[in-house]
Amino acid sequence: MFSVTVRDHMMIAHSFHGEVFGPAQRLHGATYVVDATFRRQALDADNIVVDIGRAAQELRAVLSELTYRNLDGEPEFKGVNTSTEALAQVVADRLAERVRAGALGDGGQELASLVVTLHESHIAWATYERPL
Amino acid sequence: MFSVTVRDHMMIAHSFHGEVFGPAQRLHGATYVVDATFRRQALDADNIVVDIGRAAQELRAVLSELTYRNLDGEPEFKGVNTSTEALAQVVADRLAERVRAGALGDGGQELASLVVTLHESHIAWATYERPL
Amino acid sequence: MFSVTVRDHMMIAHSFHGEVFGPAQRLHGATYVVDATFRRQALDADNIVVDIGRAAQELRAVLSELTYRNLDGEPEFKGVNTSTEALAQVVADRLAERVRAGALGDGGQELASLVVTLHESHIAWATYERPL
Amino acid sequence: MFSVTVRDHMMIAHSFHGEVFGPAQRLHGATYVVDATFRRQALDADNIVVDIGRAAQELRAVLSELTYRNLDGEPEFKGVNTSTEALAQVVADRLAERVRAGALGDGGQELASLVVTLHESHIAWATYERPL
Amino acid sequence: MFSVTVRDHMMIAHSFHGEVFGPAQRLHGATYVVDATFRRQALDADNIVVDIGRAAQELRAVLSELTYRNLDGEPEFKGVNTSTEALAQVVADRLAERVRAGALGDGGQELASLVVTLHESHIAWATYERPL
Amino acid sequence: MFSVTVRDHMMIAHSFHGEVFGPAQRLHGATYVVDATFRRQALDADNIVVDIGRAAQELRAVLSELTYRNLDGEPEFKGVNTSTEALAQVVADRLAERVRAGALGDGGQELASLVVTLHESHIAWATYERPL
Repeated sequence: MFSVTVRDHMMIAHSFHGEVFGPAQRLHGATYVVDATFRRQALDADNIVVDIGRAAQELRAVLSELTYRNLDGEPEFKGVNTSTEALAQVVADRLAERVRAGALGDGGQELASLVVTLHESHIAWATYERPL
Repeated sequence: MFSVTVRDHMMIAHSFHGEVFGPAQRLHGATYVVDATFRRQALDADNIVVDIGRAAQELRAVLSELTYRNLDGEPEFKGVNTSTEALAQVVADRLAERVRAGALGDGGQELASLVVTLHESHIAWATYERPL
Repeated sequence: MFSVTVRDHMMIAHSFHGEVFGPAQRLHGATYVVDATFRRQALDADNIVVDIGRAAQELRAVLSELTYRNLDGEPEFKGVNTSTEALAQVVADRLAERVRAGALGDGGQELASLVVTLHESHIAWATYERPL
Repeated sequence: MFSVTVRDHMMIAHSFHGEVFGPAQRLHGATYVVDATFRRQALDADNIVVDIGRAAQELRAVLSELTYRNLDGEPEFKGVNTSTEALAQVVADRLAERVRAGALGDGGQELASLVVTLHESHIAWATYERPL
Repeated sequence: MFSVTVRDHMMIAHSFHGEVFGPAQRLHGATYVVDATFRRQALDADNIVVDIGRAAQELRAVLSELTYRNLDGEPEFKGVNTSTEALAQVVADRLAERVRAGALGDGGQELASLVVTLHESHIAWATYERPL
Repeated sequence: MFSVTVRDHMMIAHSFHGEVFGPAQRLHGATYVVDATFRRQALDADNIVVDIGRAAQELRAVLSELTYRNLDGEPEFKGVNTSTEALAQVVADRLAERVRAGALGDGGQELASLVVTLHESHIAWATYERPL
């Protein structure tokens, strides 16, 4: 199995609902350093998993819809705890949608799965993995 | 599949038995930067894998029983080579015991598996993965 | 010249005033991974620059007054652009005040200077350096 | 499952064939920071996955056949796009050959699989995983 | 003293002249992860050292003239050993020229100095520092 | 001013004397990831600060006298607290001695200063800087 990973980041504000979150129930923020991994059983005719430039471009496009925002004020996250693990799924699902729509070309259809990791600090990160 | 990882560290002395270890047969030491990953199929009602604060607390509790010690003098490691990979298992098994005992709350019972990585330097690390 | 550095982090929300900030004029957030460096000409009687445990404790104390907050709502930052470089100064000045007040013991009085770096992402950071 | 990883690097020149590569069709180069992970179901009699010193030595041996070279001029890569993911497979396959030939001792025969990651920059890397 | 640093990278091929370089006399390549640090005595009216977005843009512009090239074939490097330290100076000097030409606005004229670090691998890097 | 840095590591056991060290008064250990920086005003005839291969070799030689040892049992450290900052000086002074003895060739005599950083974990490190 092959994989290619690209890294980018986003900077958001949000707050959490639920006692378990302690002081994180207050409005605060995070830089998420985001790694998106594209997995594929075999390489394509160009000997690659995916055009790494386009992969980076699609990741950037997904993150640009989230970065520099207060997620508490975004209708799509109304009543949702935007935890690191939940946001990893949001990023992965949106990337998956773009791949299925052809954003990575025909080769994108051969991708087996997608792994998205959000690093919230030097001591904590979360991952979501899904098939494509 | 979702996962959440927390990082902490311990600083121990030890020596190894067996020619394969070369100069590491002498008493020496290591800083282990420890990553503990908790994996779960679906998020809980709070939209998280695990309370990250409690996860960090449990990892710290496990490491506090090992850090600032000479493992050669600890009865539990009598005659045992405390290699990086073996210590990864020790940390994972002790974390698993705590999870089963309820240290991470009811949600802890939904965890699928645990992965523990010990980084011994910038050029070497070892991992142990086990179901929960 | 000797120095000792300890690392911790904080997670805040804020927004900026001024066209130069572009989309960062919107309410967003950041994880700041914070490195505090204590510099001293010679080691003390214990052969150290500073008690590293206390240094980490003081850094944590300073960051705990900032983390998990929306800086836009804090009276002390009213009308102030809390840029990464400006926050580096805030952290350094507050640490300096604690050192002068004796938080690091008598040895703290021998410190020559303080350097604080705030990493806002994997591709950007800012530093403030001041005498003590 | 246990694993042990060792890290080394190589510095090569190459160019790519195919419009998808854009400016990378020109002769350029890369530092690849290479992580080789050896996986094994159970530890051996010495309580290790593999002699980490020999593992590092074998990785170095494989990389020494590639580093400080223009891959475009190497007969083995004639007409081959030496993408990061393709080179990850080259390194993994050559390591696997050495393991099968006994380079890691009898214990090497118990290894389950091999994972090789090549980091081409701070924002992109590729991985190849294969059974042993 | 304040500073702001931005990170980017370039991927080049080159070879060295001189016995001291050993196997690096052969055509090979490198990824240089490049950190550019802008230093300034006091913050500007916006409370910043420099517009971080423009700083990143200027660094990218300088690197785009070098990346994806064989430096041996570039007239400007004819007969020049493009060592990591020498390239750090090239990048710093070109950035300085842009700053003086106004690329970072009026505030750029207040910058005190520039530090450029090129990381050639996980175990080696070089730095060039100059006044502005 | 130019500089070149090389990285290596050592793994030692030791204990500290003095109440300030708390649990670190017990025999424990550390991995020190060591960065040695060589600074020079101008490049030499080969356009380098120092032969990076020889620099790495000398750092390795210095560390090989310390690694895989219990520093408490080494006569040279009798009654000495081998703190991270104190060991940074030991490494720097030994490197300086080698440089003066010609280990880095004639060019070594042109070096202005030496900076040695020992990373004891992901959250703490110490540095010693001295002229040459």
